[in-house]
Amino acid sequence: MCSPCTTVAPSSSAEGFVATLLADGLLIETGVQGVFGKNAAFEAVVRGIDALVEAAAADMRPELVRFPPVVPRTLIERSGYLAGFPQLIGAVHSFGGGDTDHAALLQAVEQGGNWGGFLSSTDVVLTPAACYPVYAMVSGTLPADGRVIDAASYCFRHEPSNEPGRMQIFRMHEIVRLGSSASCVGFRDEWMTRGESLLREIGLDVQCVPANDPFFGRRGRLLAATQREQALKFELVVPITSAERPTAVASANWHQDHFGELFEIHDESGATAHTACVGFGLERITLALLRTHGTAPERWPRAVRSALQL
Amino acid sequence: MCSPCTTVAPSSSAEGFVATLLADGLLIETGVQGVFGKNAAFEAVVRGIDALVEAAAADMRPELVRFPPVVPRTLIERSGYLAGFPQLIGAVHSFGGGDTDHAALLQAVEQGGNWGGFLSSTDVVLTPAACYPVYAMVSGTLPADGRVIDAASYCFRHEPSNEPGRMQIFRMHEIVRLGSSASCVGFRDEWMTRGESLLREIGLDVQCVPANDPFFGRRGRLLAATQREQALKFELVVPITSAERPTAVASANWHQDHFGELFEIHDESGATAHTACVGFGLERITLALLRTHGTAPERWPRAVRSALQL
Repeated sequence: MCSPCTTVAPSSSAEGFVATLLADGLLIETGVQGVFGKNAAFEAVVRGIDALVEAAAADMRPELVRFPPVVPRTLIERSGYLAGFPQLIGAVHSFGGGDTDHAALLQAVEQGGNWGGFLSSTDVVLTPAACYPVYAMVSGTLPADGRVIDAASYCFRHEPSNEPGRMQIFRMHEIVRLGSSASCVGFRDEWMTRGESLLREIGLDVQCVPANDPFFGRRGRLLAATQREQALKFELVVPITSAERPTAVASANWHQDHFGELFEIHDESGATAHTACVGFGLERITLALLRTHGTAPERWPRAVRSALQL
Repeated sequence: MCSPCTTVAPSSSAEGFVATLLADGLLIETGVQGVFGKNAAFEAVVRGIDALVEAAAADMRPELVRFPPVVPRTLIERSGYLAGFPQLIGAVHSFGGGDTDHAALLQAVEQGGNWGGFLSSTDVVLTPAACYPVYAMVSGTLPADGRVIDAASYCFRHEPSNEPGRMQIFRMHEIVRLGSSASCVGFRDEWMTRGESLLREIGLDVQCVPANDPFFGRRGRLLAATQREQALKFELVVPITSAERPTAVASANWHQDHFGELFEIHDESGATAHTACVGFGLERITLALLRTHGTAPERWPRAVRSALQL
């Protein structure tokens, strides 16, 4: 499912690359690590990648759904995300007090203090992955052939970093498969090939590698090892700021019956459904393109511009 | 700047309208008030409105920027948002503990308890309006003619409601003007006209009304009254679930030197810049269209479909 390929060797550092992108206006600094504005040129590339993903999935006739970048807190509680990735969570807190509490809140702000303590949990959490609301949406019985769903969303992961490829908030375009075990394994494998073709078509030097999720803590190391042993997750990696440690720009995952169980998704016989997904990181692919072809998209190779509808 | 018009009288209730949209698949329930998924038909309309706004602004040659749906906490602190609208804030909290705290967090989740207390403030807050990051971005000296910027983003406001038009998370497409007082007043007035034309072109029964922001608490009532007296804010309203209380689907605002002062934006002479913005609520306009023309966009009048590139 993974074919070997050579890698290019980007010469400059992560910091140097970000400095170039900021100077060229492609990224706009906000003052927070991993939170950037983007200009028209960057956004046009993102739109092009989005369209390529849709085209690559078209023969699977996915149902398109779009959820906002927050999901219900109960969905996160149910999903097991807090067991695996508490360090990445972005829970939304708000203010429910009256005039007196408000005065105290403003005083804390004025004094540069921590005003988070004046807030309390709301019913929502920032979306950790575009496919999460899909599992809640399909709770219940699947049609005979299962379902294929196209989902895309801004996602949040609390991991401040100077690495341009490690944004705290970024867009992910996913195709999700729900159905039998065989359909999900086939889908995952098929998308490693399709994903690799898609990325090669736009001139990226891609490799397919076995991978694991960044599970938290002591127990997490065990989960990660099991995930690799069972070969559940593969990533497509491309050099962005390091040839030795290329960055994952897409991943294909077979979740077995993990989400089927948690969200009570089953087939007509009552058997728990399996799920799989492929996710494309739109900012990361754009950065890989800027790294590979230069920071002036108007001078990219004609075939790449054409594929991206630039 | 506001021309009179008649209003239609929608017959069914807010709940009835939402039930229809859910049954027809245009909205997808998440279980949280004001947080919905959308299907392909809904999203196609949103894209059409986006394109109409861009076309209406094209002669002003705005610079396009896109920020993610979170902004720095320091930006919110500096902006005065917590003084005016603490009740609407969506601050992002995350988990920074170790294995022991994690076990306690999971126990709270397990027992259905409040686990928000295990989290602490991050450096980001959900974006309250698409124009906020723009003011921070342009801190400093403006060019001689000022600037015009096209910004769009998901925005969050913590106001759970059964009203379909009052989503907690929704998309706003804004054009922002930064420059002299005269240029900002002119921009605001020009956009009431352009906004009205744009909405009439897609068959909406629009009225222009003076308005105020939903300032918090006792002090807020005073601020709201002053804003109306000074005629700083106008809204374009369209009936969605009530003819008597039509819903604001766009607003045009002159902020005087409010943001110029807070974000130290000035002209070449050193004088504090004025700012103005016009914002279009993409979900609200889509809902108004569904209310006006019916919930089957494929049967909307040909001129409306053509304007929206459907």
